[in-house]
Amino acid sequence: MDELEIDAVAEVELDDPVLVEGLPGVGHVGSLAAEHLLEELEGESTLVRRIYSREFPPKVSVEDGVAELTCAEIYAVSVPDGRDLLVLTGDHQAQTNDGHYVLTTAFLDIAEEFGATELYALGGVPTGELIDEYAVVGAVSHESMLESLEDAGVEFREDEPAGGIVGVSGLLLGLGERRGFETACLMGETSGYLVDPKSARAVLEVLETLLGFEVDYETLDERADEMEDVIGKIQEMEQQQQMDVPTDDDLRYIG
Amino acid sequence: MDELEIDAVAEVELDDPVLVEGLPGVGHVGSLAAEHLLEELEGESTLVRRIYSREFPPKVSVEDGVAELTCAEIYAVSVPDGRDLLVLTGDHQAQTNDGHYVLTTAFLDIAEEFGATELYALGGVPTGELIDEYAVVGAVSHESMLESLEDAGVEFREDEPAGGIVGVSGLLLGLGERRGFETACLMGETSGYLVDPKSARAVLEVLETLLGFEVDYETLDERADEMEDVIGKIQEMEQQQQMDVPTDDDLRYIG
Amino acid sequence: MDELEIDAVAEVELDDPVLVEGLPGVGHVGSLAAEHLLEELEGESTLVRRIYSREFPPKVSVEDGVAELTCAEIYAVSVPDGRDLLVLTGDHQAQTNDGHYVLTTAFLDIAEEFGATELYALGGVPTGELIDEYAVVGAVSHESMLESLEDAGVEFREDEPAGGIVGVSGLLLGLGERRGFETACLMGETSGYLVDPKSARAVLEVLETLLGFEVDYETLDERADEMEDVIGKIQEMEQQQQMDVPTDDDLRYIG
Amino acid sequence: MDELEIDAVAEVELDDPVLVEGLPGVGHVGSLAAEHLLEELEGESTLVRRIYSREFPPKVSVEDGVAELTCAEIYAVSVPDGRDLLVLTGDHQAQTNDGHYVLTTAFLDIAEEFGATELYALGGVPTGELIDEYAVVGAVSHESMLESLEDAGVEFREDEPAGGIVGVSGLLLGLGERRGFETACLMGETSGYLVDPKSARAVLEVLETLLGFEVDYETLDERADEMEDVIGKIQEMEQQQQMDVPTDDDLRYIG
Repeated sequence: MDELEIDAVAEVELDDPVLVEGLPGVGHVGSLAAEHLLEELEGESTLVRRIYSREFPPKVSVEDGVAELTCAEIYAVSVPDGRDLLVLTGDHQAQTNDGHYVLTTAFLDIAEEFGATELYALGGVPTGELIDEYAVVGAVSHESMLESLEDAGVEFREDEPAGGIVGVSGLLLGLGERRGFETACLMGETSGYLVDPKSARAVLEVLETLLGFEVDYETLDERADEMEDVIGKIQEMEQQQQMDVPTDDDLRYIG
Repeated sequence: MDELEIDAVAEVELDDPVLVEGLPGVGHVGSLAAEHLLEELEGESTLVRRIYSREFPPKVSVEDGVAELTCAEIYAVSVPDGRDLLVLTGDHQAQTNDGHYVLTTAFLDIAEEFGATELYALGGVPTGELIDEYAVVGAVSHESMLESLEDAGVEFREDEPAGGIVGVSGLLLGLGERRGFETACLMGETSGYLVDPKSARAVLEVLETLLGFEVDYETLDERADEMEDVIGKIQEMEQQQQMDVPTDDDLRYIG
Repeated sequence: MDELEIDAVAEVELDDPVLVEGLPGVGHVGSLAAEHLLEELEGESTLVRRIYSREFPPKVSVEDGVAELTCAEIYAVSVPDGRDLLVLTGDHQAQTNDGHYVLTTAFLDIAEEFGATELYALGGVPTGELIDEYAVVGAVSHESMLESLEDAGVEFREDEPAGGIVGVSGLLLGLGERRGFETACLMGETSGYLVDPKSARAVLEVLETLLGFEVDYETLDERADEMEDVIGKIQEMEQQQQMDVPTDDDLRYIG
Repeated sequence: MDELEIDAVAEVELDDPVLVEGLPGVGHVGSLAAEHLLEELEGESTLVRRIYSREFPPKVSVEDGVAELTCAEIYAVSVPDGRDLLVLTGDHQAQTNDGHYVLTTAFLDIAEEFGATELYALGGVPTGELIDEYAVVGAVSHESMLESLEDAGVEFREDEPAGGIVGVSGLLLGLGERRGFETACLMGETSGYLVDPKSARAVLEVLETLLGFEVDYETLDERADEMEDVIGKIQEMEQQQQMDVPTDDDLRYIG
């Protein structure tokens, strides 16, 4: 196998499409968002490319006994009253620093091939605490993009994210800019501890405003409710544990 | 030395052979099975290829003072009343993610060269606890293979193995499928803590049914008995230790 | 993206320039020094090269919402009454051993392109304790350079730095020498625990003597004062903690 | 810099030379032995090759202020009444698995260039305890070599070293054999915890018998005496600590 093998699964004509990337990352916000988008627009979606690479883990996933080699996938989506989309998803990031550059370059090549000049990288930004109001923080490749994104509800902050943006999302901004793409990274706030469907919804709602598609959030909300239950149980356990901690008096007794 | 050097040790004509891979992994199930197969069919086996690679650890093994460079080996086996075999064994997996792709590609090249179109990757699947009944769990490259394997006693489960299959076994499925091979991975259940000859036997028995060879299990059973002794001693020590743990009363006394 | 991409941002004619490197390292001494130099000589500085590489982390930094791809930068500085400078800065070192060789080779290529034959690598040498007098320790590519540097106040010690010099600074000496450059590494003593503007000043003062430029230290001194406050608070906390440690008597009481 | 750069420092005609390798490893036995050999035969030695590589750490060592880039060195030694030698030394091994293959290949190329067909890799084999009698354990590339080495006092054991031989010493055996060299690895027993000049002497004495040179051991014995002092102090400290451990009675008193 070569370092990179791209399977052209289907050819689809798209009109000025936008590439939307949702690979795994903080709180799985980006991948949840991209997968939900594809589920809701399933009737309009076609798998067009599979990207295999030695930069991915040497692994197959297995479902009902049938194995599938690790890859990233790009779907073409013809949105009825909105912009056409190329949606990039997958179960893995590259395994090395170098690999992120290799894969992002491949993704940009495919975006170019389909005539895309705009990119949206979806992800999460960790806050370290549980969240009530889900802000969407942004970063862009060109200053000129700030205003229209702010109008759509994206927040730009002086020094955030403090550590920069790493992986494919970061490089879609960095390498994308060098190749003439207009890229925005939309990062939903998330605790960073748990898979976060609410943060994914916040990101998708911004994207709806920007790109003119409309999706239902019922299944995503159901997953959010399931996560709420998990969080509730964790908090209960924590309270219980605090009550079980021996006090000074207990300790004296043992001594 | 090049990244990959393949020594053609001998040439053997095989009739529609099946490649059987047994490299080290969980519970050494795959390598135990492949080595037992070669020992039992020694009279019919010929070493045909040695695969050296910079992806292997930079190491020689030493036996009676004579050093041998780390490599993988492929034996041709002409089974009297069964399918011809190519058996792949060795002491090491590749040392990097990338290396698994490189080595698996080399193994597939050799399988192709000998006219093999079917592959069996042998291994173990960890259960985390000691086992009485050794089920053999399967994964296949093509859905059409499920039925005949189920008839041979292989179990296919909805979400197992949960983490997928990594290393050469996984890539024989994934890369093999991309090159037109029919691959099955047969994974014997095993605790994951110990070398497990019983699990290797369970895997071999399935393979016997599928490929029509017959082997004796005496030496494998002897190794299983030795492992039982080891397990027995570990359990005894654990019980002893539990008895030695000071009780609350003991602690009070010290205080 | 290729392993290395060099953007020629501007062309500037320099007269026998000296390359001054200040990438991140111990106590951030080198990068503080290089950045201060550029701030103080801003009117005379021109960004001439940006160096992008797959050896850098796959990352963008974000400021006020606008992303910038990780790179190293080289500025041309025409110093009024001193030697012309090429100042090399950046936020990151290479991420692999191999990468340090790749990047240093690129930096030497650019130095050569601008006609530089002398290099100064700036950095810190860790002492493991807080420092009052900031000595500047040196290392050179050619014995003939020792005397003039000693005259400028640089100290050369028998076995220091004991572990040698790693990263780009080390390779500017080692690879530079192989390509005919005269290189000196100037290392300010620093505790190694904190960002150290005082050590950066000590290094710059030596460089002033050697190269004939003159800079103001007000902003660097302000940063040093801020660090003093931080150190003060840490020491206070440590003392407080020591007072809180239970004495033998306390422990007896608990028992 | 290329992945590998070999400087031809001098050309020397040798008569059927033997390459002796002593790079750092267990107990520094190999490097101590090679360095002692070069010191004692200094009058007959000429540095002929320096090997630089991106596989070495990106580092310079510094002595009296002058930096030297990490490399390996090969000396030609014309021994008056013995076999001519090529002695390979250096301060570092390769930093990656792959790098060991790259460097060993380079060393074999140079051995070939000087007409060597026999190689001796010197090293230590860890025993895990302090040693009185320093046996020298061997491994060879060809069974035919066993007898003459046994006559010279080398011990060959059934399963030793148990974990095989890694790094350049191992690959001189493994890759050397593939290229037609006769290689022996001579490993002095050593605790594995400390630099061990006595083990280095044991290895050199075997080599003297085999190759017909004669060296004085005074300086090596002095270093051994220094190490004895270190060991003595460690043992003293350990005994002291044992005496300081509180007994059960002490503990009861505190409670």
